Amino acid sequence: MAKPRLTPLIESLPAMVPFVGPEALVRARGKPFRARIGANENVFGPSPRAIAAMAEAAAGNWMYADPESFELREALAQFHGVDRANIVVGEGIDGLLGLTVKLTIDPGDTVVTSNGTYPTFNFHVAAAGGRLVRVPYRDDRQDLGALLDAAIAEDARLLYVCNPDNPMGSFWQADKLQELIAALPDGLLLCLDEAYCDTATAMQPLAFDVGNSQVIRMRTFSKAYGLAGARIGYAVGEAGLIAQFEKVRNHYGINRVGQIGALAALGDQAYLADVVGRIDRARGMLGDIALRNGLQPLPSGANFVAMDCGHDGAYARRVLDGLLARDVFARMPGTAGLDRCIRVSCGTDADLDVFAAALPQAIADADAE
Amino acid sequence: MAKPRLTPLIESLPAMVPFVGPEALVRARGKPFRARIGANENVFGPSPRAIAAMAEAAAGNWMYADPESFELREALAQFHGVDRANIVVGEGIDGLLGLTVKLTIDPGDTVVTSNGTYPTFNFHVAAAGGRLVRVPYRDDRQDLGALLDAAIAEDARLLYVCNPDNPMGSFWQADKLQELIAALPDGLLLCLDEAYCDTATAMQPLAFDVGNSQVIRMRTFSKAYGLAGARIGYAVGEAGLIAQFEKVRNHYGINRVGQIGALAALGDQAYLADVVGRIDRARGMLGDIALRNGLQPLPSGANFVAMDCGHDGAYARRVLDGLLARDVFARMPGTAGLDRCIRVSCGTDADLDVFAAALPQAIADADAE
Repeated sequence: MAKPRLTPLIESLPAMVPFVGPEALVRARGKPFRARIGANENVFGPSPRAIAAMAEAAAGNWMYADPESFELREALAQFHGVDRANIVVGEGIDGLLGLTVKLTIDPGDTVVTSNGTYPTFNFHVAAAGGRLVRVPYRDDRQDLGALLDAAIAEDARLLYVCNPDNPMGSFWQADKLQELIAALPDGLLLCLDEAYCDTATAMQPLAFDVGNSQVIRMRTFSKAYGLAGARIGYAVGEAGLIAQFEKVRNHYGINRVGQIGALAALGDQAYLADVVGRIDRARGMLGDIALRNGLQPLPSGANFVAMDCGHDGAYARRVLDGLLARDVFARMPGTAGLDRCIRVSCGTDADLDVFAAALPQAIADADAE
Repeated sequence: MAKPRLTPLIESLPAMVPFVGPEALVRARGKPFRARIGANENVFGPSPRAIAAMAEAAAGNWMYADPESFELREALAQFHGVDRANIVVGEGIDGLLGLTVKLTIDPGDTVVTSNGTYPTFNFHVAAAGGRLVRVPYRDDRQDLGALLDAAIAEDARLLYVCNPDNPMGSFWQADKLQELIAALPDGLLLCLDEAYCDTATAMQPLAFDVGNSQVIRMRTFSKAYGLAGARIGYAVGEAGLIAQFEKVRNHYGINRVGQIGALAALGDQAYLADVVGRIDRARGMLGDIALRNGLQPLPSGANFVAMDCGHDGAYARRVLDGLLARDVFARMPGTAGLDRCIRVSCGTDADLDVFAAALPQAIADADAE
């Protein structure tokens, strides 16, 4: 039978799915979750101003969004103290990670990441035929020195650092990142995924230096801004590097309602500050629940807490399964060493009550097996 | 100064922008358009049910959309009489065109298209390093026989046909497409872009044959359904081929509000029928305006009309510039031969009044130069 020809790379790839969504789990379970605290969404939601702007924008959805995202980029540029030419908007950070890989990686080119950090980045590297070098975590943190050493030793073109880290929640302060940046060899691009930076109240923020073409920083409206469904991420970098995205991005890929919502959310920093406070409080409550149940909460700058279950991956998986069976949607790291933990997103008080009730039972189940 | 390494392909590409948006024109002009009839949007808007669903969905935008688009795919499958596994949802057809190219084209591989049809497809081929073979139009239609001959002679992996065609509006009936499909050589994929099929009231629709892995068909909610801003397109094809998209697509690229709006719009076929009637009427009125002004409207199945200005590209450009100067946003083909035309999208009666008043003045300007 006649058929199309796919590229050898595509033929060689497994059909990997980075993350199974909670909706698929609900369909398989046949019943809804009582607490949706597994995808690091912001249960407190976006600014009421953003909600109102999006609701009002619905009728105008017959129009394409501005493919240049001019107004949003202008507002972001002012907010960050950079120029519009330093910013490109994409379909979430996920989309921008794919484009960054496309700009830099040919089949066989080397990419360095930490073994167990955000897997969607790896997904894009695989789709580009890149050679992925994974550096182990050290004390549940990405090991900046070892990452740099590996990038130099392997002549990598791209180095991925997630700060704060997903799935562990750990983060590096600005001075450590500046040391890394100062040491980057010629020909290496550092992709700094800062999806969770807005909730990292204890983290000293790294200043923007858009004169440095070796660093590209990823930001999103999906986390602290509460607009995961809007798919609005952006990258900040040197203008010449940002201009390269014009060659490969889906110019009409950004949805109109999301773009309008993001602009309104950015304009409501008072609401953001309030939400970050609530996330910080929930983070503390999650830590307390963990401790009360004999789990060790890891320090987190993100809107989730990784909890060390104190045993191996099979044990943590049993705890997680016990939570899922009790209608709590949570997740866990998939990588050996990290997989002694479960990962629970910040929730409303009601969400945390459900979690607090389910956790001891899930642990009892895990212990009993 | 140290810098990152881009791939040789990226370094070689020009920073091509497929379409400048009307917002950029408005910023350059410093005043709004009175008629936005240049981007083939649906001025009549989406179903009120879709608007209501999207407005209601705004508050839930803190959640990611289902990355499997299960409900929308299920509804589309039932609507088209295919299986969910035959459908993949993407960020508009544009996004899916990019993925289709990624699945099939390595640098140097050959792609065949018509010289002057939808340029965003070419943009994606360029970004993949594909070798693009352009076949001339014949009588303002894509020349199916010549396209097939070229694909065979050049050992192409991918053949693009836009039906109805953008920018000319012409279309082929199902029997002619079936002849093409029956003659496709092994190893060739036909990408049939049917963005405008829903408004082609005189076109006999091609039945779906999802047993054939050599044809992939692109559909969208951007045109007849009036949801251009939502960025919801989908591809229909053989299940094994559709499954390949899982290897490369941005799994969390689809925005939640748009997905919900598309589902509601699909469910309101009575509204769609009504809108298609209004588009058909506007198409007729555009033709009448053209004829009254000595321009020849081309038969169109799309939600726009190409109007032959009867002279060369420079003349049509003057007519278009005259329209833009009179606050009418329209466009024109960029390719020699086709560029004797301007292209005007269906508008409201008010839009068409503005156009009807501006056109004779624009023609007078063009004649005077």
